[in-house]
Parts: sequence; C-alpha cells; structure tokens
Amino acid sequence: MMRTHTCGELTKKDLKKEVTLCGWVDTRRDHGGVLFIDLRDRYGKTQIVFDPKHSQDAHKGAEQLGREYVVRVNGIVRERPEGMVNKGLATGEIELIVNHVDILNPADTPPLEIDDRYLASEEMRLTYRYLDLRRPTMQKHLMMRHTAAQTAREYLSSQNFCEIETPMFVKTTPGGARVFKVPSRVHPGKFFALPESPQMYKQLLMVSGMDRYFQLARCLRDEDLRADRQVEFTQIDLEMSYIGEEDIYLLIEGLLKSVWKRVLHIDIPTPFRRITFHEAMMKFGSDKPDLRFGLEFVDVTKIAGKADFSVFKSAVDKKGVILCLNAKKSNFTRKDIEDLTEIAKLYKLAGLAWIRVTAGGKLESSIVKYLSEDIQKEIIKASGAEEGDVLFFAAGDFEKTATGLGQVRLEVGRRLKLIKEGEWNFCWVVDFPSYEWDEEKERWQARHHIFTSPKDADIDKLESDPGSVLAKAYDIVLNGVELGGGSIRIHRKDVQARCLQVTGLSYEDAIKKFDFLLRAFQYGAPPHGGIAIGFDRMCALLCGESDIREVIAFPRTKNVENPMDGSPQEWQESMLKELYLKTDIPKKP
Amino acid sequence: MMRTHTCGELTKKDLKKEVTLCGWVDTRRDHGGVLFIDLRDRYGKTQIVFDPKHSQDAHKGAEQLGREYVVRVNGIVRERPEGMVNKGLATGEIELIVNHVDILNPADTPPLEIDDRYLASEEMRLTYRYLDLRRPTMQKHLMMRHTAAQTAREYLSSQNFCEIETPMFVKTTPGGARVFKVPSRVHPGKFFALPESPQMYKQLLMVSGMDRYFQLARCLRDEDLRADRQVEFTQIDLEMSYIGEEDIYLLIEGLLKSVWKRVLHIDIPTPFRRITFHEAMMKFGSDKPDLRFGLEFVDVTKIAGKADFSVFKSAVDKKGVILCLNAKKSNFTRKDIEDLTEIAKLYKLAGLAWIRVTAGGKLESSIVKYLSEDIQKEIIKASGAEEGDVLFFAAGDFEKTATGLGQVRLEVGRRLKLIKEGEWNFCWVVDFPSYEWDEEKERWQARHHIFTSPKDADIDKLESDPGSVLAKAYDIVLNGVELGGGSIRIHRKDVQARCLQVTGLSYEDAIKKFDFLLRAFQYGAPPHGGIAIGFDRMCALLCGESDIREVIAFPRTKNVENPMDGSPQEWQESMLKELYLKTDIPKKP
Repeated sequence: MMRTHTCGELTKKDLKKEVTLCGWVDTRRDHGGVLFIDLRDRYGKTQIVFDPKHSQDAHKGAEQLGREYVVRVNGIVRERPEGMVNKGLATGEIELIVNHVDILNPADTPPLEIDDRYLASEEMRLTYRYLDLRRPTMQKHLMMRHTAAQTAREYLSSQNFCEIETPMFVKTTPGGARVFKVPSRVHPGKFFALPESPQMYKQLLMVSGMDRYFQLARCLRDEDLRADRQVEFTQIDLEMSYIGEEDIYLLIEGLLKSVWKRVLHIDIPTPFRRITFHEAMMKFGSDKPDLRFGLEFVDVTKIAGKADFSVFKSAVDKKGVILCLNAKKSNFTRKDIEDLTEIAKLYKLAGLAWIRVTAGGKLESSIVKYLSEDIQKEIIKASGAEEGDVLFFAAGDFEKTATGLGQVRLEVGRRLKLIKEGEWNFCWVVDFPSYEWDEEKERWQARHHIFTSPKDADIDKLESDPGSVLAKAYDIVLNGVELGGGSIRIHRKDVQARCLQVTGLSYEDAIKKFDFLLRAFQYGAPPHGGIAIGFDRMCALLCGESDIREVIAFPRTKNVENPMDGSPQEWQESMLKELYLKTDIPKKP
Repeated sequence: MMRTHTCGELTKKDLKKEVTLCGWVDTRRDHGGVLFIDLRDRYGKTQIVFDPKHSQDAHKGAEQLGREYVVRVNGIVRERPEGMVNKGLATGEIELIVNHVDILNPADTPPLEIDDRYLASEEMRLTYRYLDLRRPTMQKHLMMRHTAAQTAREYLSSQNFCEIETPMFVKTTPGGARVFKVPSRVHPGKFFALPESPQMYKQLLMVSGMDRYFQLARCLRDEDLRADRQVEFTQIDLEMSYIGEEDIYLLIEGLLKSVWKRVLHIDIPTPFRRITFHEAMMKFGSDKPDLRFGLEFVDVTKIAGKADFSVFKSAVDKKGVILCLNAKKSNFTRKDIEDLTEIAKLYKLAGLAWIRVTAGGKLESSIVKYLSEDIQKEIIKASGAEEGDVLFFAAGDFEKTATGLGQVRLEVGRRLKLIKEGEWNFCWVVDFPSYEWDEEKERWQARHHIFTSPKDADIDKLESDPGSVLAKAYDIVLNGVELGGGSIRIHRKDVQARCLQVTGLSYEDAIKKFDFLLRAFQYGAPPHGGIAIGFDRMCALLCGESDIREVIAFPRTKNVENPMDGSPQEWQESMLKELYLKTDIPKKP
C-alpha cells in the first residue's frame, strides 16, 4: 500500500500512530528552521512537520520541495501545540512529524494559483483545467455532481426504473434543434446524427414494454452558444407507461427531495406549488417564475383601458393586456426608472409607463395627465400603492407584455434585494397551451413537440378553437430557472392525426418525417409520458453557481473551443478522403 | 392511477381483491365461450378471464381484442381451478375475472412473434426492435444490464470513486484506433473527434487530484466490424492515484464479486488465479486462456528438437518452441485430425504434426518415422499419452505457434465437450512484455499504450534488453474472454523519456503527438493506474449470450446500419453547406 490514510482523515483518535500519506505540497512555512507543509489531496489537508531535531534526513529532503510537488511521507501523528489548532479543518487538531519523505514527482511552477481565493482568467482556467480542478471548490463540485447522479440513479432504480443506453448515433428528424453530424466511412454520402435528446428512442422503449426507462443521457446540440449552454450536456431523461401527469409530479418531487437531502442535507417540502402557465405569465411575466419574492403584477386592463391614452386603448382594442407592477417602497429615482425602461426595451416592450407616489400621496408621472381622477383612484386601490412606491405599466399583446414586465420585475427584485439566499423555491408550471399562432406562416404550430397530448377535456376543441386547447405538458422550475420539462404523449393514432391536422400536417405527411416512431405506434403503444431534467443546470444550482461550467470537468469556451486539448482540430487531407469529403470554405473577400 | 398492480405481482395473497391491470394481449384461448387471455407487461403475465356469465359487456369487449392490443382491465382476483395452476409462473395460482375492459390502443398484426421460442431473422428483429424487445428474454437482459451497471456504480461509489463525465468531443492523437469525426460548423475546416476511450482525460483527472475516477463511458470506434463489436460500446472505465497493481486486482475482484452476487446470486471465489502472459501462452496458447478445462500444452522443445525432422530442427534453430497438446481419450479419427489441421492453418500454422496412440500403445503418425525410439518414449512420458490419446505438435516462433495451437486446443475442448456450463472461471493475465519487435519497421514498439509503466525491476533493462522488459499491465479474463485490461501508468518524465526512446521517439517528438497530456504531467502527476472493462461483453456473459447485441437496446447490423431508424442517412446539400463540406465520392467504373 502506497499510503495508509488520506490527507483528510487523521484526527486526535490517531495520535501516536505511524502513518504514510501521499499528496501535493500546498503551502509551506518556515518557522525557525522547522518546516511546516500543508499536504493536500481530494480528501483534505494535513499539516506535516519537518523538524531537523526529529529527522535530519527528512528535513533535508523537504528543503527541495516546491509547490505542487507530489510526495509520500511517513511519520507519527501528534497533537498540535495549543494556539496552533485549526478548528476550520477536519485534521486541524493534529499534525504529522515526518520521519521520511519521498519525492514521487517534482512539478514545474504552476501557471495559476491552486487557491480558491485567487481565480485565474477563464482562458487560463480552461487551458490548465487539470490545475484549476485541483482547487478544493472544484473537487467539491465534481463530488456533489457525482452524489447527485448516484442519488438520482438509486432513487429511480428503487422506483422500478431501468436505465437503458439509447444510441449515440441516431437518425435526425427535420424541425428539431440543429444536430451534429458524423460522416460515415462505410457508407459514402451518408451521416449519423448525434442525439439532441433520446426523445424518440425513449418513446420506442415504451412501445417495447420496458414500462419505466431512465438515463443520465449525454446530449449534443449544435447551437449558437449562450452563457448557460454547452454543446454537450447531460439530462436526467425518463419515460413511464400507464401513467398521467400526477404520477410524474409525485415521482420528480421524490427524486428532487432525495437529491437535495443527500447532497445538501436539506429537506425540501413537497408537494411543490403548481401554477398554470397563464397565471405565471399574468402574475410574474415568466413561464419560469422566480417565486422567492412577490412583486406580483396587477391586471389593470379593465381600469386603465378606460383611460384616454392611445397605448392603453390600442392594447385593449387588440385584445391585449395592461399590467401593473408595484415596486413597493422602492423610492426609485428617475435614473432607476430609466434603467428599468432600458430593460423593458431590451425585452421588446415599446416603453414603460410609470407613476411615482411621492410625499403625501401625490402622483408624479408622464401619464397622469391621461388618467382621470377616478381611474387614478382605482389604480391606487388595485395596486395598493402607497408613498414611496413606483408603479410600472406595460401594455400590449399578452405574452410579449407579460414577458417584458417580467424582466423588469426580476431587476426590481435584484435592486431591492428581495431574494433570500439559501431558499429553494420549486414549482410546477402546468396547463401550457398546445398551440401558438405563427404570424409569419399564418398557421398554428405545436408549442411542444408534436407528440404532446392535449388535455382530455380539450380534445373536442381541436378543430373549433385550437388556441384554447391546453396540453398535458409541465415544467419544473427552481428559483426562476427551468430545471426541466416534459409531457404526457399522444399514444393513439386518431388523436395524433387530429393534432397534426391543426398544424396543417396530414398523418401521411407526418409519417414521412417521423417514420419509425409513428410506425412503431401502430403496433400497440401504451399511454406514456416523461420528463427531462437538465442535469448540469441542476448541479450548478446545487453548488450555488450560475455558470454550468463550474460543474463540468472539461467544458468548452463560448466559442466551442477547448483551449486545453486544442479541439476542434484541423482536418487532414487523408481524413477527409477516407470519409469521401472535401472542404468547401468560401474565401474571404 | 391507471393501474393498481403490474401483471407480475398478484398471488394468492390478493384473492378477492378488486384490481386494475394494464398490458398487452399476449395469448388468447376460447374454452366453451369463456375467453382466457394472458395479459403481459415487463413484470410478468396474468391470466385474465372473460366469462359472459360474469360480465356480458366485458366478454363482448374482449371479443374485439387482437394480438398485442393494449388494454386496461378491472376485475376480481380468484384462485385458478385445480389442474389449471401454472407453477412456472409467479402469478400461476390466480386469475382475474374481468368486470370491465378498456381498449387503450389497438394494434396492427405484429410482423414477428412476441415469443421467446420463435426468433425472427436478424433483419426483422432489428427493423422491429421495439417488438423484439417485448420478448421476456430481451426485457430480462436489459434489466440485468441495468442491475449490473447500478451495482458497479454503487460498489465504486462505496470505494470513494467519483463518476465524472469526460467530453464526447475530444482531440484525437495519431496512432490510436480510427475515430469518428464531427465537422465543426462554427470553425470551418475543423472537426471534433469522438472518444474511442476516455484514456487521456482520465489520466488528466489524476493529475487534477480527483484521486479515484470512474465512468460508465460511451465510446465510439470507427472499426471495420467484427461479430462481437459495435461501433458504439460502453466500458466501466476507472483510474486511481497512489496505487499499484495489487490495488487494482483487489478492487476489480470486489467489483465483479458484487455484480455476480446481485445479478446472478452467485458467489464467485476470490482472489482470482493469476497467470503470467508467458505461462498463459505456453500452456494454453492464448493471452485470454479458457481455464474451464485443462488440455495444457507440454513444452517438448528440448525433446523433439533432437529429432531429425526439419520443421522441429528449424524451430529450435530460430529460438522458437515445439509444443505438444494431448487430446486425452479423444479417439479422434483421421477426419477429426484433418479438421483440426485446417483450424491450425487458419491461425497461420504451417501444419499440425500428430501422433495417435492406438491399441496396445502403438503409435500411428506421419512423423513417427523421424522420431527415434528414445524420443518417442520421452514424448509419451512428458505428455502422459495413453491408448486413445492423440498428440498434436506445433513448432516455430513462440507467439505464433502457441496461438495457433491454442485455437486447436479450444476446438478440441469443444469437440470433447470439456466445458462445464455454468462455470465462471476468472483469471488475471499479468507480466506482459512491454515491447514487441516490429519486423516491418525493424524497431521495438509498445505492446500497450506508451504510458504503460515497466516493472520497477526491469527499468534498468530498457536500454540493454528491451525485449525482456515486463510491463505493469494486466488483463482480466473470464471463460476465455477478455473482459478488460489496464496498466499502471508512467508518471515520471525521466522514465517516460527512456521508454519512448526504446521505440525510437524522443520526448520532444512525443510532446508533439500527446501534447496536452505530457504537458500536464509536468505539473505534478501522482503515480496512477487504471483499467477498462468491456461492459457490453460483461453483460452478454452474465446473460449467457455470445453476441453483445443481445444486451444492447438498439444495436446496429454488422454493416453499421440500423434498419429500424434507417441511419446512416443521406446528406442534404444544405447540411453540407452549413459545415463547409462537399462530398467527393469516386464514380464506380
């Protein structure tokens, strides 16, 4: 055995034991000829002491040790002198007086600090990721991710789920996200698609009678990158047969409860609040509402619509809404209001009307002149406005207006510091509309994928009023972040045909697009449904991080590069030839 | 709740209960107007009874039911009449008398039988994989695979391992297996490689101090297919720091023990036998010896080398070997011997010399004339030959000779039915040579990858006698099948440089090839080593199958096609354009 213990486990229980430790030289201090080194491994740090009076040889060996040298030390566990005890460290009451040291490997001077207090630039962190990962915080993140994955697997296994690996090489269907493609060498002129999700294959597993499938699925999506995305990501993907929405809610609540308990030792209360899509939009301006604070909108369409103000009037005429957000006791300045108006514009609102309630209940605003005394009173009453409050108004098309004001709400929440840290606010967003009107193509299109089942009660409105049909679709939201979503699927051919018809597709057209799945459905598909949870994002939230790269071992830059290994790399002629391909890059003018 | 129970759980404990089941119509029998249906799901089968005297409606509904219809039935659990009990079925003592039946989904007539007794053609099975997977055997295989994976994960987690997802998009290094390549859209003229294994990334995780890594890793290799390969496969991949070979043996024995216990309820004895590469070759003619039967070779180089037989003489002159295999009590006919000679030739032996011991100890053979009485006696003694035995001889270069005779041994074992079914014979093959001589390039090359550490005792022979240097490499073998292999890696730059030198590479040359890994090693790499176990093959063995496709949900044909989804699919012009590529397929003459 190379070591008897790790650097994180020796305590006062081990006093006087002779032990052998291995690890990296973390910090080093010389106190009057006695050398103190913190030896570090994944499990912790142990103070090791080289005293020439104890061992001349060991002390001599230690003098050669540089930062991040890999060493093996043999010595005796002893109590730290009083005043030297470090209560913040599991091993803080002991130290190791070293008999003998071996340098297992020297190390060049690290180009970045292995210290959680000093973070290098993104470029440096990713180039020397193997050093960045030595930081205790990154090691903790990867361990938490492991524990979360393992807990999810154990929970789902206990619920009779079977983890099944679906193919990495799949067929792509038109209309989905942009997928990566792998040229086939054996079949010139053909390619394999990499899966953006195992959606069709997991539904096939339901047709195959596997009953309960899950997978921590690796997915790849050739998206233009945003801050919180990677081209590679992992989802907790699952599907169940002979179930309805309630079964999914119960299962996922149990899953998240067990993960939070094991990883963070926190009991999250279940069942989670449920909020309909319509309510989420009308009150919070988001289909992933952050419920850690209030600032709910007030619907003033009826009140403000009566005003002689063209923006409000036009909203009402076009069957839109007028929403009011009361920034309670904000005492926002003109500058604050201007900043918030900029945000509103960024999210496609024409502008933001506002009213300040100043000393003595006086109203200050550019729109007050359009509002009669009566209307003013009604608005004050409906919004509960008091001195120090600022009311914001947005008017127009329901979704656009709510979404824009929703972003203003989030910024108001941040400015007023309304978000309590350490709170875990889960909710289900339910009752999504099945269809949305595509202005450009002038037709209805499915909001989710085409296999999403409408609510039973709404099936008879498919032809007469598609816009009012709600879907058996649900999202799970945590602290304003969408953790995942899913739906109960359509399993019957007759319903599928009617739903396709709404979007202007015949069943026969659809067969051409989704051939193998729809064909499979003809041989006895059970009622089924499922969900996918973004595992990277879930882990980031568990670790208190906003960037998913903080919980991924080897992530890419936003430019899809990995500065550590240098991928992507240049094609070589021979590689292209083997794949029957040529590059065709337009010359820059 | 759509169902109260599954089709596999009702027993006599549930008599008189009203229950609801869902499932597929398996078989259907009409006995004097009463309809008996086996309802099937993943958990089992339950006999459901439609008696017009009990419910006219239900019976009427049942008359419409075809094979593989998906139904939901409500009824009362009752005891089966005596003589109708099916002891082979968990639910065999009860049946359900149906009150009410709902057809959840009709089904077209399945194009293949959902019946383990009738196996469709490979083409049909893969085209309708979702129906093939409905067979109880396939469902059992996928469940066993899940249990094996889950057990491995739990075991490794209990041993402080952290599962870490390494990238799917990597950089390829020259000289490895052929990898699949993914054109980059964002970086014209560049590509990502798909990982043939996480080798370099797991070693980087050791440099990063993660200490114990594992992953059930998805790997992709653009190989020309063999029967037991798929382009996609899964391995239990792991790596540990501060360890030696013994730590790996102990860990993997514990891992396999726990998997066999949980999946098959079998206690496999540990520690496993260890056999050196040299012994495995000299006795069994294979580096993955099937130890379920004997038929060990006898080394007759010294004895037979004295004979006046040019084949033997030449073998001895060239420092080769003469090996003898005694097919005990085989009473092989001339035809048998001819068949075995064909196998020897298939595996590159020039031929197979043989001696039959016939009645009264008389020797019959084409080579007896070359052997003196003394040599004959010595051979008889060394091989323990008796009446009814047939001795086979192969002579020449050690590895080629042993390998060829090893294949003859396997066939003899099969013909003599020496393999006991249900036996699990594990062994470690150890002490592999580090280098082999490349005749063509006239230089030494690494037998494993270039990071494999030589044995400490052999380091000083690196320059003087590379051929005798043994490696810290090991394979785990089960029943003659290589389950996996690994090694302790080189972690010191000085040793790495000397090992590279043997193969004619300078450290600087190597840096160009393996840039980021060797660079990382300079910043404090700990001693480390690991192993990868072929998970598909392990599951196939657990399930008693020889073809790994029997344990993969959606495998490909040997021609890398998936007849179910039709992948690979044709490029479309727009797709190629987006990737800055053109096809370049030579026209057939």
